[in-house]
Amino acid sequence: MYGEYLTNAQGEDVVAGIRTPKAVLEMQTEMPDLYKQLEELRRNLETHYHEVQDFEYTIEKGILYCLQTRNGKMNAAAMVRTSVEMEKEGLINKQQALLRIKPDVLEQLLHPRLDPSSKAVAIATGLPASPGAASGQCVFDADRAESLGRSGLKVILVREETKPEDIHGFFASQGILTSRGGKTSHAAVVARGMGKACVAGAEGIHVDVKTRQAFVGDKILKEGDVITIDGGTGNVFLGEIATVPAEFTEELKTLLKWSDETARLKVMANADTPEAALKARQYGAMGIGLCRTERMFNATDRLPVMVDMILAKTTEDRLVALGNLLPIQRGDFKEIFKTMSPFPVTVRLLDPPIHEFLPTERELEEDLSNLKELRNNVRGVSSLTKTLQLIQKDVPVLKPPVPFDDNSETLINAAISKKEDMLAKVRELYEVNPMLGHRGVRLGMTYPEIYTMQIRAILEAAAECVKENIEVHPEIMVPQVCTSQELLHVKAMVDKVREEVETKHNVKLDFKFGTMIEVVRACMRAKQLAEVAEFFSFGTNDLTQATFSFSREDAENKFLPLYNEMQILQDNPFEILDVKGVGQLMDLSVKWGRKTRPDLKVGICGEQGGQPDSIRFCHHVGLTYVSCSSPRVPVARLAAAHAKLLESSYHVDELLV
Amino acid sequence: MYGEYLTNAQGEDVVAGIRTPKAVLEMQTEMPDLYKQLEELRRNLETHYHEVQDFEYTIEKGILYCLQTRNGKMNAAAMVRTSVEMEKEGLINKQQALLRIKPDVLEQLLHPRLDPSSKAVAIATGLPASPGAASGQCVFDADRAESLGRSGLKVILVREETKPEDIHGFFASQGILTSRGGKTSHAAVVARGMGKACVAGAEGIHVDVKTRQAFVGDKILKEGDVITIDGGTGNVFLGEIATVPAEFTEELKTLLKWSDETARLKVMANADTPEAALKARQYGAMGIGLCRTERMFNATDRLPVMVDMILAKTTEDRLVALGNLLPIQRGDFKEIFKTMSPFPVTVRLLDPPIHEFLPTERELEEDLSNLKELRNNVRGVSSLTKTLQLIQKDVPVLKPPVPFDDNSETLINAAISKKEDMLAKVRELYEVNPMLGHRGVRLGMTYPEIYTMQIRAILEAAAECVKENIEVHPEIMVPQVCTSQELLHVKAMVDKVREEVETKHNVKLDFKFGTMIEVVRACMRAKQLAEVAEFFSFGTNDLTQATFSFSREDAENKFLPLYNEMQILQDNPFEILDVKGVGQLMDLSVKWGRKTRPDLKVGICGEQGGQPDSIRFCHHVGLTYVSCSSPRVPVARLAAAHAKLLESSYHVDELLV
Repeated sequence: MYGEYLTNAQGEDVVAGIRTPKAVLEMQTEMPDLYKQLEELRRNLETHYHEVQDFEYTIEKGILYCLQTRNGKMNAAAMVRTSVEMEKEGLINKQQALLRIKPDVLEQLLHPRLDPSSKAVAIATGLPASPGAASGQCVFDADRAESLGRSGLKVILVREETKPEDIHGFFASQGILTSRGGKTSHAAVVARGMGKACVAGAEGIHVDVKTRQAFVGDKILKEGDVITIDGGTGNVFLGEIATVPAEFTEELKTLLKWSDETARLKVMANADTPEAALKARQYGAMGIGLCRTERMFNATDRLPVMVDMILAKTTEDRLVALGNLLPIQRGDFKEIFKTMSPFPVTVRLLDPPIHEFLPTERELEEDLSNLKELRNNVRGVSSLTKTLQLIQKDVPVLKPPVPFDDNSETLINAAISKKEDMLAKVRELYEVNPMLGHRGVRLGMTYPEIYTMQIRAILEAAAECVKENIEVHPEIMVPQVCTSQELLHVKAMVDKVREEVETKHNVKLDFKFGTMIEVVRACMRAKQLAEVAEFFSFGTNDLTQATFSFSREDAENKFLPLYNEMQILQDNPFEILDVKGVGQLMDLSVKWGRKTRPDLKVGICGEQGGQPDSIRFCHHVGLTYVSCSSPRVPVARLAAAHAKLLESSYHVDELLV
Repeated sequence: MYGEYLTNAQGEDVVAGIRTPKAVLEMQTEMPDLYKQLEELRRNLETHYHEVQDFEYTIEKGILYCLQTRNGKMNAAAMVRTSVEMEKEGLINKQQALLRIKPDVLEQLLHPRLDPSSKAVAIATGLPASPGAASGQCVFDADRAESLGRSGLKVILVREETKPEDIHGFFASQGILTSRGGKTSHAAVVARGMGKACVAGAEGIHVDVKTRQAFVGDKILKEGDVITIDGGTGNVFLGEIATVPAEFTEELKTLLKWSDETARLKVMANADTPEAALKARQYGAMGIGLCRTERMFNATDRLPVMVDMILAKTTEDRLVALGNLLPIQRGDFKEIFKTMSPFPVTVRLLDPPIHEFLPTERELEEDLSNLKELRNNVRGVSSLTKTLQLIQKDVPVLKPPVPFDDNSETLINAAISKKEDMLAKVRELYEVNPMLGHRGVRLGMTYPEIYTMQIRAILEAAAECVKENIEVHPEIMVPQVCTSQELLHVKAMVDKVREEVETKHNVKLDFKFGTMIEVVRACMRAKQLAEVAEFFSFGTNDLTQATFSFSREDAENKFLPLYNEMQILQDNPFEILDVKGVGQLMDLSVKWGRKTRPDLKVGICGEQGGQPDSIRFCHHVGLTYVSCSSPRVPVARLAAAHAKLLESSYHVDELLV
């Protein structure tokens, strides 16, 4: 029993600060009989209310009077602990123990958060893009983040926006802060996937990479200045603010075990690397619902191979580059399969438009202009570190510090030539609306050799596991499908590679073939797609964009806040599933798909898959699983249990109206 | 009777070129009895086959023998003429007369086309973006096109791509040729709307505006070089190729009158200006189904006012600019209403993202760099015509040729300041996926004063017509709607303005309020939208993009041709309505919308609205009307009649599977 008590005094004295109360435990020795009565009172109240009680009492002339009582206000940790304790004490049953905790409050336990007692004032605010609080020195490019991070410093990567080539900087940073982009911007999505704190689109901050500083109003942030970001609120602070660490207690584990026993929905994680897979298991994921293969290409040592693949002028050249990528992907898949065994791992084939792996047109133009200036001054210049770094990225043989010699011009010319190829490619690949462009299975149709390589990497990794007696259940998933013809083409590649791999390794492979449902037309063709696909996975990020004709980044930066304020839309549909529109399409798709294939496995792998209200809807339209970023997995597990426990109080057909 | 005959010879001699046949009419005098027999034979054959016959006969020893017969092959003009003639002769009835002509062949009659006997070889090929053939001198910018066009020269506007600011160049040109962009690129859509020939995305052509020339392989096109473009095939030729003019004959008018009497679907036109409205009537449109208000802002004298509106830093400044636009729009609407009276005119409120009215970031950067160079050299430079033109656009008081004087620097500074404002705005308005961005009703929500001005212009124009006893039926249409909340907000603006206008003009206004259905979510919410909207109009260009997650320009340039070739998709869904996906959504929307409002008027105003197969589908799902570009109106009228005549042979439910 916790609390405080006063002797010979009125409560008003406490409020007025005149008296300091004693801990209630001292009463045990000072007034043992009354303490026993108090214990009994507490037990009676809590048995009656099935909830921890915050009650007031007074003792007058040796008699205990109860003045008032109410349910105790508790933070997440206390809620979890008391739930499990009360169940153990027989005060409540497991269902009640689960239902008294709102799933979202678990989020508090799973990330470090700012010390609630801090009085610091934010210098800027962006979008709360990935939860958690983090402090560190500002750095303005990924290379610098990596080198400082390696030397043991805590850093925050501050960028206007991030690109796949910055990915090594993410690994080295405590958190990411961008001045541009929404909640599905590269920075936000990658940070969430890694479980790193991220504040995105903090428009008040102007980043100047060249001078290594950022401007916030009249303040200047220099490289090395310490800041703290709160990915739960979007706030940015000067200096280091104390944080409270994450807690994954035994009680929480118990509670989540009960959740899993109760829920009908399975909870998977979105994870792209062996490290992320390990984290997914730690959070209790029952498999990987979305493994984005392209994330594997972003490491510093891999991106150049990917770029070679993209620059290839012939299919033969592309096959050579793909041959170099194959063992890398196979190795990653094998590690992931082993980590997740015996759970399923759903691998999505290449999805983003390939220009995302290249620098921007502006960056390349600037690089070229710098390189050409360097060539003009090749003999007169002694120290052009930045430009040297520039060459080095493209011509790795040249290691600074390098004195200029007869060979320098040749090397610079090689770098210029490569950059010019990249620039020409970037211009060729330019798209007006990249979200709706040459991506997903459309790449698989135009460059079948890319998909074939990826399929081979998955199946060879699986074959190696089988030979090592590791149970694996890969699932191959095709993105951006709009017609069953596309699926049939990829299925033909899969069948061919399967035969080759099974013959070569002399094993039988057990895997599933399925499709993302993220294009509206796929919903309309669900009946036909289910003839080819063994599972569906709703990509509700893209599906929401297509259903609303909202580009998320543009919408969240331009008009969505006003839409919420004017109550044109109740919620942000990118965070909470839009049941009336997107949900309606999902409902039709599930019904139509299961007409063809009654046992069709159906999941969701968009961000809403970790959001409790959305999970409840997924339960009701009959989904098999939800998949979300690892730190959301505990929330989703509890939400899935709630969905089951409360299913009779929820009527989907009414909500769709 | 037409044909040729030989005496005392074998047909083989004709084939061998040994004998020259005589016109069959000469037989009338040479062998009058046999000629009568021949006439009877023709009548018997044509009465039997209900079709003009191409038959062979021989006369041997005074006896006429018929050797073989088949239906005559005819061009469009002959088909139309013979249809009407055969009906007049009682050989066929009106239904048969209509059904023997495929609607698409009428297209041949409605545009000038290349002389079929020409043997010219194309130097480049792009997309056939707007039908018709046109010859003229190459010009590389719109201003030049306008000045040469005014002086009576025939010109072809050749651009990398066009923007709204080029619109005055369209009016002055015979045709438009671009090296970039698809069939919904600005050039293509505007050209189709104006009925001008257009070849878009001819990627083999590289346009260099600065040097006023274009490169095609090893050929150079200089300003003034004559080319011919064929908007029906996408071919581009050097020199002038003879064309055959369009024909709109009495027989065609008769045939189309029969079509209108037969069809259930009404046929409207997409038309944006008074001139286009007049053309729509000439083609027999029964109203305007889509009047895009933004097109009215593109004329040289109007765009600057629009730009002022966009650059306005406060609502007050914006209201001033809008006050200048109001009388312009009102005047246009009044002219259009008068021209179309008593038919309905459906006016769509502002739709495109407003950055479309500004130059690109690159263009502005270049202008600024030129202006700053000019300022630096202000006293030393004698001839910088181009830069002077540049200033003049922004500071109209300065008329070249102008000697530099003390005032020049002030003027240049004013121009720089304006360009800098524009550049800042362009950067602020930047969107990753403009197709899915801040546009349509979203602009109406964030800038209600823009929509209010447009609504006022429509209703005041209607009120003025009513006072002049001109029958008008305006319809106000809201674009990009995704929820009925948006419609309710616009409806409130309409109600307020209606009351003001009716009071001011002391009239009662009769008009409809409705919504585009071009966002997928609008389909899902059709039942709710129909509570507010009196009509629906399917915007199948955007709806197709959203349903497939295809950006048309990107798709047509990058992967759609391969998709057609591999038979992944049978057709280009931007030309022929995708019945199985988009059509499915339309079918659901019509059913759900009419549950709420059984007499809901429903139309289509996407490009597919002029395509015969798509029109047939529209007939079957119960649409009220189709609307298409004026030159397609005759095709659509005949197709609408076919849809009615053949309705029992077509089963929508089978097609949706």
